[in-house]
Amino acid sequence: MRRRAETGLPGRLARSAAATEGAGPRTDEVADWLAERVRAHRFRVDRIPFAALDGWSFAPDSGNLVHRSGRFFSVEGVGVTVDHGPFPPWQQPIIHQPEVGILGILAKEIDGVLHFLMQAKMEPGNRNLLQLSPTVQATRSNYTKVHKGADVRYLEYFLGPRRGRVLADVLQSEHGSWFLRKANRNVLVETDEDVPPHEDFRWLTLGQIGRLLRLDNLVNMDARTVLAGLPTSSADDRLARALHTDRELLSWITAQRARHEVRVERLPLAEVRGWHRTPTAVERADGRYFRVVAVAVEAGSRETADWTQPLIEPTGRGVTAFLTRRFGGVPHLLVHARVEAGLLDVLELAPTVQYVPENYAHLDPDDRPPFLAEVLAADPRRIRYEAVHSEEGGRFLDAESRYLVVEADPGTPPDPPEGYLWVTPGQLGALAQHARYVNVQARTLLACINAGAVGPL
Amino acid sequence: MRRRAETGLPGRLARSAAATEGAGPRTDEVADWLAERVRAHRFRVDRIPFAALDGWSFAPDSGNLVHRSGRFFSVEGVGVTVDHGPFPPWQQPIIHQPEVGILGILAKEIDGVLHFLMQAKMEPGNRNLLQLSPTVQATRSNYTKVHKGADVRYLEYFLGPRRGRVLADVLQSEHGSWFLRKANRNVLVETDEDVPPHEDFRWLTLGQIGRLLRLDNLVNMDARTVLAGLPTSSADDRLARALHTDRELLSWITAQRARHEVRVERLPLAEVRGWHRTPTAVERADGRYFRVVAVAVEAGSRETADWTQPLIEPTGRGVTAFLTRRFGGVPHLLVHARVEAGLLDVLELAPTVQYVPENYAHLDPDDRPPFLAEVLAADPRRIRYEAVHSEEGGRFLDAESRYLVVEADPGTPPDPPEGYLWVTPGQLGALAQHARYVNVQARTLLACINAGAVGPL
Repeated sequence: MRRRAETGLPGRLARSAAATEGAGPRTDEVADWLAERVRAHRFRVDRIPFAALDGWSFAPDSGNLVHRSGRFFSVEGVGVTVDHGPFPPWQQPIIHQPEVGILGILAKEIDGVLHFLMQAKMEPGNRNLLQLSPTVQATRSNYTKVHKGADVRYLEYFLGPRRGRVLADVLQSEHGSWFLRKANRNVLVETDEDVPPHEDFRWLTLGQIGRLLRLDNLVNMDARTVLAGLPTSSADDRLARALHTDRELLSWITAQRARHEVRVERLPLAEVRGWHRTPTAVERADGRYFRVVAVAVEAGSRETADWTQPLIEPTGRGVTAFLTRRFGGVPHLLVHARVEAGLLDVLELAPTVQYVPENYAHLDPDDRPPFLAEVLAADPRRIRYEAVHSEEGGRFLDAESRYLVVEADPGTPPDPPEGYLWVTPGQLGALAQHARYVNVQARTLLACINAGAVGPL
Repeated sequence: MRRRAETGLPGRLARSAAATEGAGPRTDEVADWLAERVRAHRFRVDRIPFAALDGWSFAPDSGNLVHRSGRFFSVEGVGVTVDHGPFPPWQQPIIHQPEVGILGILAKEIDGVLHFLMQAKMEPGNRNLLQLSPTVQATRSNYTKVHKGADVRYLEYFLGPRRGRVLADVLQSEHGSWFLRKANRNVLVETDEDVPPHEDFRWLTLGQIGRLLRLDNLVNMDARTVLAGLPTSSADDRLARALHTDRELLSWITAQRARHEVRVERLPLAEVRGWHRTPTAVERADGRYFRVVAVAVEAGSRETADWTQPLIEPTGRGVTAFLTRRFGGVPHLLVHARVEAGLLDVLELAPTVQYVPENYAHLDPDDRPPFLAEVLAADPRRIRYEAVHSEEGGRFLDAESRYLVVEADPGTPPDPPEGYLWVTPGQLGALAQHARYVNVQARTLLACINAGAVGPL
């Protein structure tokens, strides 16, 4: 019999976040170590025409881009109608991947401080190929050996009879604009065992990861989303003060979900209006949003050595930002209840701004997304955090966003427009311990806050 | 600026639960008042052939049973594949109702005790027609006047600029075997205003409702599900002891969801295998599970006075039960992570037993659902709660279940089988304040516990 709430963990996480050096490599050596791991393997990614894909083809009837095994994922179509909001009904390609994957980070106390076992992992869509990743990052196809590759290292800590204590474990969505109802299991397990070392893995403190999150394209999306779910002391502190109570926040989310009637219909890719297929891409005539492309990959350190696969390539760099502001001395973030086609439950809490500016450049300034101009024009003295990060490099090619936390213009009125709400980082962190409240972009910024990458708010 | 957690509410709810009489009618007069309301109106429900439905018809292409407005709901088909578990792929009719409705109870302190405004509401599927219902029980079609009916009384407390404080507000699923991804907003609002009385409404304490929940078919499903979401002191007490911590419980739910790969494909009703249509029913040759039928309704107190509609009619009475057992002196309930075709997120926590025994009578005893025989044969001295309740009478005809809380055989091993877990009522109550963790049948039994209808566990 135990208490329902464990009380020691938030303090241990705070100590790890305060440790900007640890028992493993020095923080300023990690980038060099990653560069060394790139050289140790032979990594190469080339764009290829769809006809050169091996095992992937467009299905004759639907035009869906599928793998001959019927597993992994497929690129299909979707038609979306939202009954509120600025957008008329639209159709788009979307990745369909019903499998639930595992993003797992193994933790261990070394010299009294929690360390996390991070992997130097190649993903074909990353511009720099290799980034700091969770201990385990595997689709069900990976770990059930559909592709007949090598075993997934350290998987035994996360599946079956566990060899450790669970610190966090939650199903989370990924990019709702590109994935149809995708979910991954985000899990942190602590072990007391001696863990066999491997040359592609290193133990780092939370504070070290926080420092590395200040650098561009170094900590991958999968690591960021797992770290967003940490039970930090601010997430746990239900006696902390905030503009709205937790109950009011839940009620606001419920009201936002009930307000939007979103109809999502799956379509054959061949029937998606406004998109056409060339030998090398599925794309729009106006070049907006994204393209579906194909690559060939050579890699020495993945479960399989060489393969080809489709990727989604966004047509511009995103800008993803929280506005922050103090109320009664307490920092708050401005969340946006954002509808995305692929989200299971209509909408999730997103950063204040989450757009590729080029996609809106043709609009009148008044029709452009709220707060985008304020973020783009922010006085550098108001920027509390800024770095470029990549989205999931296993599915997206050069999908980069500039992530920011920006102090709001103190002259703007404190009451946000419909669909926006001021919440504390602790409230957002508490929601991120449950499924499908906080979207993947907001989780990146929350991980930066949890790990101490963001300056004082 | 306020504290994130409000602290006064659980105590106020406990006081209301302890008040078995209140400022309104005496508890033992409520059944008489309901009978009097039946007499005050002219209520009549008759079975009719589909051909006599007004505004409803089978669509020529799909065979779906639809309303000419395109609103309300439709009866369509669904094909389901679950990759774990005893069931081969199956197909079935299912209700498709994408609208989010409101189930709202208005609360008010009278003489220092919280009272709830309960309605005597007719629903055509209830055997006794009229039951105690939430203050507001309205689909979006209802309250946006698709059917050109009267205004929904007291709706203004729940929509738009609120005239009260929110005590609970959460989107919850309904029957996953009969509804495709249905959700209703379950909301409790407290007001300090004078509320204009109406003859079909009465103020009752939580304790009075608890006493009434011991009677058969008196408190309707919509009232029960709202009362399951109350922030009781046991739900809020994260320092209470339990067999598993809250974090372990969330991790177990995540693992159960990740373990099951469920594929649900919508089908035209005409193509659902194993079901056929007669002039009066869509049903199976073996008579199992349920039938789709049609009724004509005369009613004086609904928003519209007379109408026809389809209903789902289960072919037997259900048995829905929690096994309960003390660990370290603390009562626990045995929850089942139950996959249902229509649930948005694969599975929710269900009671230990939730079956119509007749549907399994043809199976060998070893193949029948776990714990069903134990509940059916339980020594009356081990029964802590027992009453017959109706499911949503607006969609289901004579859909009754015997709801029980039964002390587990002390001789059985404490480790439950895969898919089952012992949790405290407080832990279940905490989950019920979030969407889609606790299924509608488990919420009925949780409401009985919250309102004091269940004897000491």
